[in-house]
Parts: sequence; C-alpha cells; structure tokens
Amino acid sequence: MSCKWNQRKVRDMDFFVEFSPITIQPQEIELKSFEMIEEEIGNHSFSEEQFPIVKRVIHTTADFELGRSLRFHPEAVKAGIFAIRQGKKIVTDVEMVKAGIHQSRITHFGGQIICHIRDEDIVKEAKEQNITRSILAMQKATSQIEGGIFAIGNAPTALLELIRLVKLGKAKPDLIIGVPVGFVSAKEAKEELQKLDVPYITNQGRKGGSPVAAAIVNALSLMAQQVNRDENE
Amino acid sequence: MSCKWNQRKVRDMDFFVEFSPITIQPQEIELKSFEMIEEEIGNHSFSEEQFPIVKRVIHTTADFELGRSLRFHPEAVKAGIFAIRQGKKIVTDVEMVKAGIHQSRITHFGGQIICHIRDEDIVKEAKEQNITRSILAMQKATSQIEGGIFAIGNAPTALLELIRLVKLGKAKPDLIIGVPVGFVSAKEAKEELQKLDVPYITNQGRKGGSPVAAAIVNALSLMAQQVNRDENE
Repeated sequence: MSCKWNQRKVRDMDFFVEFSPITIQPQEIELKSFEMIEEEIGNHSFSEEQFPIVKRVIHTTADFELGRSLRFHPEAVKAGIFAIRQGKKIVTDVEMVKAGIHQSRITHFGGQIICHIRDEDIVKEAKEQNITRSILAMQKATSQIEGGIFAIGNAPTALLELIRLVKLGKAKPDLIIGVPVGFVSAKEAKEELQKLDVPYITNQGRKGGSPVAAAIVNALSLMAQQVNRDENE
Repeated sequence: MSCKWNQRKVRDMDFFVEFSPITIQPQEIELKSFEMIEEEIGNHSFSEEQFPIVKRVIHTTADFELGRSLRFHPEAVKAGIFAIRQGKKIVTDVEMVKAGIHQSRITHFGGQIICHIRDEDIVKEAKEQNITRSILAMQKATSQIEGGIFAIGNAPTALLELIRLVKLGKAKPDLIIGVPVGFVSAKEAKEELQKLDVPYITNQGRKGGSPVAAAIVNALSLMAQQVNRDENE
C-alpha cells in the first residue's frame, strides 16, 4: 500500500537517532509502564482481582494518589466482568468516557456503549429547566435499559441522580463506576455511592475523570476477555 | 415537548430533598468551582493571560499540582487565540481529546478538529511497522495541513514525532499543546518540547492527559470568543 503522507518508513526516519533510546513499540511501552507502576506503588491492600484495575488507572493518569484512592464494593469486579460477558450495555455520562473505552472488547460480547449527553431532547430540556444535561441523560438511560454498567467520569450531578434513581427503585445497575471529578459535589457524590448496596467502583476525594472511568471499564473488559482465554485452554 | 423518559420534571423529583443543599445549575457549578480554585491555589507566577488556562486545567482535573506544573512559551496564549480566530485546524492525538473540545466555539471561527488515530490506513500501517499509531497519525496530519494547533494529551510518541517533524522543517504548528501522560517518555518529550522555538503549552512531569489537552483548547477558545465581545462593545 502506498501512503502519500508516509513517504518514508518511520524506521528510516531517524526517530531513534533523534530520541535514542526511545520505546515506540506499543506493547513494550505498556509492559514497561506497568513494571514501573508495580515497582513504585509500594504497600497496598487491594485484592488480586482489584489490583489490575488500580494499575490501569495509575497507567492512565500517572497519579499514584488517585490510584490508591480507589474503593471497591466487594462484588464489584465480579459483577463488572459478568455484565460485560453478558453483553450488557455500558452507559457513560460524557462522550469523552465513551471515546476512551476499548470498543471491540465490549462489542465482542454483544455489548454497546451509550451516551445521551448530546441528544437533541436532552440539550433542549436541560436549557428549559436550567439543570445539567447529565441529570436528564441519566434519567433517559435508566428508563430505557435494564441493569448495565454506568461509567461516570465527569459530572457529579449524573452520579447523584443515578444514586437517587437507585434509591427510588427506578434503576438497578449491574455496576456503577462513579469517578466524577471536580470541586462541587464530586467528593460528596462518591461518599453517597459507597452507602448503596449496589456494586460500585469509586474513589475518595475530588479527583477522578473521564480517562479514569474509561480505564476501569477497559481493565474489566480485559479481564472478561481473559476468562474466555482461560476457559479455552 | 413530551419526553417519554422524563415523566416528571426534575425539580418535582426531590433532587433537592435528597441531596440538599446541592447545586445543579451548570453556570453556578462552574462559577463556584472557579472561586474555590482561586481561593486554594495560593501564590503563583502565571501571567494574567496564562492564569485562565491554569484554572481551567485545575477545574478539569481537581489537581493543583498538575495545574501548577504548566509551562508556557511566551507567545503561546496569543498564538493560540490568533490561530483559533483564524479558523486554523486543531489536530488531536486521540479521540478523547477531540471529544473533550467545545466544538461550536471552534467551528464558529471556521475551524475544524481532526484526529487520524482511527483512520484505516493508520491502523494498518502501524500494525505492519509495529509502532504506535500516534506517530503515523502525526505524519499524516502535518503532511496535510499548514500551521494549526496540535493538542496532544495521550501519546508521548505523538509529541516526540511532532517535535522531530518541526526540527526537520516538515511541520510548523501555530501552537503545540503537549501534555501527554505516562511513565514511558512523557516527561522527556515535554522537556524536548520546551527546547523548541515554537509556541507551546506543556507541563513538567509525568501527569497530563486528554482532559488537560482539551481544557487548554477550551480555555483558549473562550478567550478567542471574549476578544470578539470586547471588540463589539
């Protein structure tokens, strides 16, 4: 194949000479990163099934404090893997979380990633009510699907609304990944989440974010894939 | 308009009762967040034009350390605002950065947000060469556009390749936003960037990320919009 934009192969293009020594093989970069994380993280009390998720969050953020602040409902990891393997839908609060999720590992099991934040009806209604689109997007999603994984990386109001719907019996997610970021209500929303008797993965404090939510889904889908491999061996 | 999923208005739905007092008006949340950031950041040496960018990065990450680690080429803010107002293209390394950018403030000036990471030719070529798609995506983008803003939030190899292309005279971006995250080469790539005589916004250390890159673009586009308002007054 001839690529107009790629007139000479990268390997011929002095990338190594310019930035030697530099790792440019994707698998090698990831492997080396995870080795560094394991070396630097020190003592922790995460279980064997939780630790891959913690490591992937640190890999995504380069933030050990954030990784160590993760908190897991005892059933969370199993519930997440099971839901992915059942092809359950994954609902995100914002497009950035959706963009960060490794799609083919979800669709492989029949799953689908859904985000309503930019839906026309949501945008219109939020303006009319002068509330966040996130609240309305959560209402729409929970009214349309059973169970599923909710991955909230941005909006504390999305998480608060989801918690409220769970308490009202209007939503029953298989897993809530609640890692919104911010100064207003993020910390408080995550504390509320930890009072629920629904599988959750969250963290303590203000930090979090879309890459964190996506990284948690990605760690779970890797584990879901791994179960397959183990069964086939 | 009747919304099937929204059978009762949120304001009737005890959101306030459940989580009182809670702010759910988007403008109020943002205003309150920025007040908290200004209160907590303490002394700093950022200029008046740089500080809105620093604040927006902290707003996005809830990470003061990350905000304070930002570094600016002296011409960076002016160059960024000018490029947006000229409708120059914005190239992102990954879809997550693209998803995080406030689109209408870019398209308003005739701009466009471009990301080649999922292009078929890139995926194929990266597999063949066993290198990151990011490297090839940067080659493709720089061969197709003049100037532009490059916003790199994820892949250190994207930033290193862009730096190399600049040194070779094959790329001449109006502004490089270089805030990749990670353990392998991220810190080093950002140090290389600061040696260039091209307007850049970057940060020191391993941290960074797609929301940071998007937040910087969004802060710049807000300022670009503000220039318009000031001129019309």
